[in-house]
Amino acid sequence: MNTRGFASDNNSGVSPEVIEKLKAVNQGHVVGYGDDPYTLEALNVLKNQFGPDCHPYLVFTGTAANVLSIASMEKPYHSVFCAETAHIQVDECGAPERFTGCKLIPVATKNGKLDPGMLEPHMTGFGFEHHAQPGLISISQPTELGTVYTLAELKALADFAHSQGMLLHVDGARLANAAVSLGVSFREMTSDTGVDLLSFGGTKNGLLAAESVIIFRPEMLAGFKYIRKQAMQLSSKMRFIAAQFLAYFENDLWKKNALHSNRMAQKLFHAVKDIEGVTITQEVQANGVFAIIPGYAIPLLQDAYFFYVWNDKTGEVRWMTSFDSTEEDIDRFAGRLKEILKRD
Amino acid sequence: MNTRGFASDNNSGVSPEVIEKLKAVNQGHVVGYGDDPYTLEALNVLKNQFGPDCHPYLVFTGTAANVLSIASMEKPYHSVFCAETAHIQVDECGAPERFTGCKLIPVATKNGKLDPGMLEPHMTGFGFEHHAQPGLISISQPTELGTVYTLAELKALADFAHSQGMLLHVDGARLANAAVSLGVSFREMTSDTGVDLLSFGGTKNGLLAAESVIIFRPEMLAGFKYIRKQAMQLSSKMRFIAAQFLAYFENDLWKKNALHSNRMAQKLFHAVKDIEGVTITQEVQANGVFAIIPGYAIPLLQDAYFFYVWNDKTGEVRWMTSFDSTEEDIDRFAGRLKEILKRD
Amino acid sequence: MNTRGFASDNNSGVSPEVIEKLKAVNQGHVVGYGDDPYTLEALNVLKNQFGPDCHPYLVFTGTAANVLSIASMEKPYHSVFCAETAHIQVDECGAPERFTGCKLIPVATKNGKLDPGMLEPHMTGFGFEHHAQPGLISISQPTELGTVYTLAELKALADFAHSQGMLLHVDGARLANAAVSLGVSFREMTSDTGVDLLSFGGTKNGLLAAESVIIFRPEMLAGFKYIRKQAMQLSSKMRFIAAQFLAYFENDLWKKNALHSNRMAQKLFHAVKDIEGVTITQEVQANGVFAIIPGYAIPLLQDAYFFYVWNDKTGEVRWMTSFDSTEEDIDRFAGRLKEILKRD
Amino acid sequence: MNTRGFASDNNSGVSPEVIEKLKAVNQGHVVGYGDDPYTLEALNVLKNQFGPDCHPYLVFTGTAANVLSIASMEKPYHSVFCAETAHIQVDECGAPERFTGCKLIPVATKNGKLDPGMLEPHMTGFGFEHHAQPGLISISQPTELGTVYTLAELKALADFAHSQGMLLHVDGARLANAAVSLGVSFREMTSDTGVDLLSFGGTKNGLLAAESVIIFRPEMLAGFKYIRKQAMQLSSKMRFIAAQFLAYFENDLWKKNALHSNRMAQKLFHAVKDIEGVTITQEVQANGVFAIIPGYAIPLLQDAYFFYVWNDKTGEVRWMTSFDSTEEDIDRFAGRLKEILKRD
Repeated sequence: MNTRGFASDNNSGVSPEVIEKLKAVNQGHVVGYGDDPYTLEALNVLKNQFGPDCHPYLVFTGTAANVLSIASMEKPYHSVFCAETAHIQVDECGAPERFTGCKLIPVATKNGKLDPGMLEPHMTGFGFEHHAQPGLISISQPTELGTVYTLAELKALADFAHSQGMLLHVDGARLANAAVSLGVSFREMTSDTGVDLLSFGGTKNGLLAAESVIIFRPEMLAGFKYIRKQAMQLSSKMRFIAAQFLAYFENDLWKKNALHSNRMAQKLFHAVKDIEGVTITQEVQANGVFAIIPGYAIPLLQDAYFFYVWNDKTGEVRWMTSFDSTEEDIDRFAGRLKEILKRD
Repeated sequence: MNTRGFASDNNSGVSPEVIEKLKAVNQGHVVGYGDDPYTLEALNVLKNQFGPDCHPYLVFTGTAANVLSIASMEKPYHSVFCAETAHIQVDECGAPERFTGCKLIPVATKNGKLDPGMLEPHMTGFGFEHHAQPGLISISQPTELGTVYTLAELKALADFAHSQGMLLHVDGARLANAAVSLGVSFREMTSDTGVDLLSFGGTKNGLLAAESVIIFRPEMLAGFKYIRKQAMQLSSKMRFIAAQFLAYFENDLWKKNALHSNRMAQKLFHAVKDIEGVTITQEVQANGVFAIIPGYAIPLLQDAYFFYVWNDKTGEVRWMTSFDSTEEDIDRFAGRLKEILKRD
Repeated sequence: MNTRGFASDNNSGVSPEVIEKLKAVNQGHVVGYGDDPYTLEALNVLKNQFGPDCHPYLVFTGTAANVLSIASMEKPYHSVFCAETAHIQVDECGAPERFTGCKLIPVATKNGKLDPGMLEPHMTGFGFEHHAQPGLISISQPTELGTVYTLAELKALADFAHSQGMLLHVDGARLANAAVSLGVSFREMTSDTGVDLLSFGGTKNGLLAAESVIIFRPEMLAGFKYIRKQAMQLSSKMRFIAAQFLAYFENDLWKKNALHSNRMAQKLFHAVKDIEGVTITQEVQANGVFAIIPGYAIPLLQDAYFFYVWNDKTGEVRWMTSFDSTEEDIDRFAGRLKEILKRD
Repeated sequence: MNTRGFASDNNSGVSPEVIEKLKAVNQGHVVGYGDDPYTLEALNVLKNQFGPDCHPYLVFTGTAANVLSIASMEKPYHSVFCAETAHIQVDECGAPERFTGCKLIPVATKNGKLDPGMLEPHMTGFGFEHHAQPGLISISQPTELGTVYTLAELKALADFAHSQGMLLHVDGARLANAAVSLGVSFREMTSDTGVDLLSFGGTKNGLLAAESVIIFRPEMLAGFKYIRKQAMQLSSKMRFIAAQFLAYFENDLWKKNALHSNRMAQKLFHAVKDIEGVTITQEVQANGVFAIIPGYAIPLLQDAYFFYVWNDKTGEVRWMTSFDSTEEDIDRFAGRLKEILKRD
């Protein structure tokens, strides 16, 4: 049995229901590439969750969902504004630039969240052919720092984007964690606030490899299926991605998983926040805990539990809880940390 | 239960062993993105199959494996020669051009197979900056027309490519079917003949979504992992692609499946070849049967079994067998065809 | 003094009027990047020539004009049909694919000219996401083989393109030679026949480095200026490209030059066609003469006059006349050829 | 006669010697695309200036020279660090990203100059496939803010880049102005300090449209000519770009022009620095003067002399002198500014 840790929610496996569903759809032949009843059903489920005017497309990875969201604009001369901590900026190896041609413009933030005031100074050069044209604001919900935008903040960003003739994209690789954190539906958080493009992820919350691009603007659909194919994201046996989303929404598996991992993050936060030597650096609003711990403690703790150092300079580390984290895992982890720091 | 047909080997589901293996690796946490023991094991299994000097990379789709094979050259000014029926030419929506920048040059063939003589006239413009530089020969084994290159033919193409300073890529989306057709090992068919780049597929032979790029030239590896990431093909929960390949090679599942589907193609071939009105158009060497049937018969047969018309002008149709095709399926299909044509 | 030959019309220098015009506009400061009165005037001159609804953009090279014409569609999943001898296919090093992402599909022709019948078999896969979507027909007028489409042929291609939801692009690097060959205006040959996108060249007919993209569809303009900038074709001192076009249309310099070079091609044709050992391979309709001569004669003739072998296998050679070719040049060239072949 | 102003050094025309040289090379036929004696001579002149191991390539625009410098690395997964004011970041419409696929990472500076300390925090993620790989440092000499790196600063950046396995690129669109500012040769500033890639411009210092990419690493040359062609920067009548560089180095025209425009910038600086209401914001080390003036004064001054507002928020403006600026131009401009501000 592999040890459960706090390195990333994608270090976990998948919910058993997911594999059961893979087995359930493994019956005879169906047309490939998404023209099958399981995919049709999954798309309908997604429409129910996000609003009848949205158009979901299934893909394999979160990076693909982000890149395809940008690519859906079909404007390689657009610029994309994002937090300097955004996944598209620091964790996708330049895939957005390579595939879309767009320029990414990172904006410094304190907690991973953008607001219109931060973007205002960049609203220049419209119509000036020397400048990449401001085209998209891309945010992560929750952010890479575990913070969550309120509905009002989302709406403010969408309104701002639209007032500038731009679109708003949400990287929702962990959107379920944000939804349960805010206690709102997916629809309230997306189509109701004015989101135009969404990367909706399932992999980090108990699925195997199932992500989607959800487009809320019908006028952007005509070419998208070709772009997905060009991005090498059209699954031949699509029913097996569809099956994962079917499992995700049956009996609210998504909610159960996200509530659990968020709760585990809270438990972890409370278990470590008062340990001497530990400084929590970000509000814990989803399933991530960010902290600064003494440099010497990092490798000692990593010996038992692999995790990522977020910032080499400050010693900030990131601990992610997962759908399968247990209370015992956290007790043991916090206990080990306490033990290490006590030696100080 | 969904009806089994002959539209494509990717209309089938997956071998039960595959789902069992997904379940088996679904244990606790492992490091993401391929730094896990299951992936390590799968890569070792692939190296055993293809030769110790090969370097396999796991990806999601066959299109991705092909595009990444071309991209691994890192030369957007290269041209790629392929049969005009090649998957990269007609079935990937221009993904190779978009992602790699390379020019594809289609070459007419009779049976989907290239040979040096067909390529010779294109060996021009080396060093001439106005021409895309001849860089790669890409063939499919088996071809899209169900024919299979012999080892000697493969070696001749590899030698020719190398004599021109070019590389040889094999689109092996159905490589298992070719291996059992020839009765040779993967290694004999690839590293031993001089293949440089291979797309090795599993999805069409009973896996869920598991393909790989296998690079036989160590000098091409330095940048490849970044290119895979940029191509949005780096799976976070990589163990689940690895698991599929583990299942594929346990108890020679790949061979069992491929032998079966090839045998079913032979059965289908023999069941229909003498029906009046049916003209078999290609040698049946793997798991595809190509035939011309009267135009009126096509929709009537499709009513019962969906399949693709390969060539609208000639009425040529394609029937693919799969790992799960049964003798009864074929008897029923051939019976239905006979019945339709008898009415004539 | 450098010897004049028949290698290419771009081996010539420029009409003296062009340099005089460069000098004339070299006065004080004007706003850069095209917002200057000379550029405004040149664009107006072009509109007068091509029709009031066209929108011309100045660029540096013919390859750029072609690539930008394709890029103006903003659809990297489109395919572009062209003759297999087209400049975009064989002489641009894959620039169209690299910059636009589109797939080029070469079509075999006898004389460099396409017609709807040749394209008909390729009209497949519309709406099918596996196929690059048929988007553009690109022809050269005159063709790379020195032949010229009639107005009726142009119209037939435009109508065919539009009937399929496609556009028609004309590579008019030598459009002046076609215009005088047909005895028609630029407008009759382009907007009146239904051409959608035009590369209009001047460099090969006596200018220095002045080409343009002319867009006949206003709905395609919104993003084009950014695309030109991204293609590195926005000249800072644009007035000097503009000046070349101003000189081109003053006193019909374009026509004088093109009439002369076409006339010289006719003279060359008549001077060589009856020499024993010379087979003229294409109709001489513009300023190129194609012929097959004995292999041994090629290097002997090249000793005196550099020119290109068009086809290594057949021994076909290409001789281009230019705005500055003289009757004496041709007499001497034909004399030399006769002398060489007499030795036979 | 168009009024001379201070908007940009590319609003000027060209030195008369340049047009004379265009006329001089306009003689008969020479082989196209750079295989002509004039181009050979120009390349030799450039080698003499920059060092015998450099390899110069002629192109049309400064944006092209920059983009091609990045593209010469042939690594679309590289990141490029630059000042947030860099031309490649703010003035090229995303051309670097679109053509090369690379990610640009802007770094904040006070005066347009980078130093190793500013780059140090970005030296992360080497070998980590999720990160674009640090590949290039790109600086401008002089900077977009008119400041000039010392030789020691250049060497420090080159050494730093090399210590990290990276390369150093210099955007030298105005390199002549830096050379005369420092009183050093081009070679001392480039190959002697360790520069790997250079965009060497002439257009802003009296040429018409002549720029070059100079590569100081022979191992990067093999593919470069194809990349230039793909970038649509291969001039057919190359002799006319070559002629401009020949004129540039005959009788040290480059030096005469740059000395003059730098001297005019000094004169302008001294003429305005003590006017009440004027705050000079950058050291005047080349041919640009940056100043903050009251908002109301900007349009009044622009009425007489068009120039660019550099920063809308602060009211900072940019005035560039040119090879053809005269003392009277500056007296009149400063006089007008004084007059406007006196009204205050």
